[in-house]
Amino acid sequence: MSVSAFRLDHIGIAVSSIDQAVGLYEALGLKETRREIVESQEVRTAFLPIGDTRLELLEPVGSDSPVAKFLAKRGPGIHHICFAVPDLEGALADLRGRGFRLVHQSPVPGADGRRVAFLHPSAGQGVLIELSEGTSGS
Amino acid sequence: MSVSAFRLDHIGIAVSSIDQAVGLYEALGLKETRREIVESQEVRTAFLPIGDTRLELLEPVGSDSPVAKFLAKRGPGIHHICFAVPDLEGALADLRGRGFRLVHQSPVPGADGRRVAFLHPSAGQGVLIELSEGTSGS
Repeated sequence: MSVSAFRLDHIGIAVSSIDQAVGLYEALGLKETRREIVESQEVRTAFLPIGDTRLELLEPVGSDSPVAKFLAKRGPGIHHICFAVPDLEGALADLRGRGFRLVHQSPVPGADGRRVAFLHPSAGQGVLIELSEGTSGS
Repeated sequence: MSVSAFRLDHIGIAVSSIDQAVGLYEALGLKETRREIVESQEVRTAFLPIGDTRLELLEPVGSDSPVAKFLAKRGPGIHHICFAVPDLEGALADLRGRGFRLVHQSPVPGADGRRVAFLHPSAGQGVLIELSEGTSGS
């Protein structure tokens, strides 16, 4: 069993206001395709596809949410990156076996109806890493 | 004239040591394809392709380089993201016309023999943005 991330699913970018932030990326030629509230993370998200990946703007909906804390501590900026893997449970088991710390020991519901899991911040050498289950066609 | 970023060219990740950092991404199934020193930025870079984009690990080669300063100030982590655009001079002119501050008013040599330019940190709402000239086939 080994992990085989096959696509950068998205880059999560913390913003104070999606409405304000989206103009920057529209100036670069990107288009927002949809918004969604992810209850489990207490965020409003907006997706902007680019090539085979997407920017995911993250606006907190509660002052206690992880993204609200991130904004309070260091201001807007890149919050995490997410890799798509074909078998999320297998990937988590493999990483655990290699000694990586995980936030989620098993998948939780993420945006898009996908199953996702975060590695522990200490595991990513300064990069917060999310894994999302998907096939190369999805 | 408007900007049309068509691909996320890469995510630049500042690391103290490429040799040390590459193991994390190999555990996720990525493979390093090559290294290059970019003199203009005083960095050693390693590329790890994923889907139609790449991670670019950035290890400083001088203590005064922008990446060395970034590491000293905030430790390892995501340094910038780079969008590929078909016409870099046109993109810079358009962004300047819209009031975006730029680090480079005209293209400079980047990794891969590409022409690149950075937006000013203040322009990206907490995200340092690079543009790279390329065609959808390159």
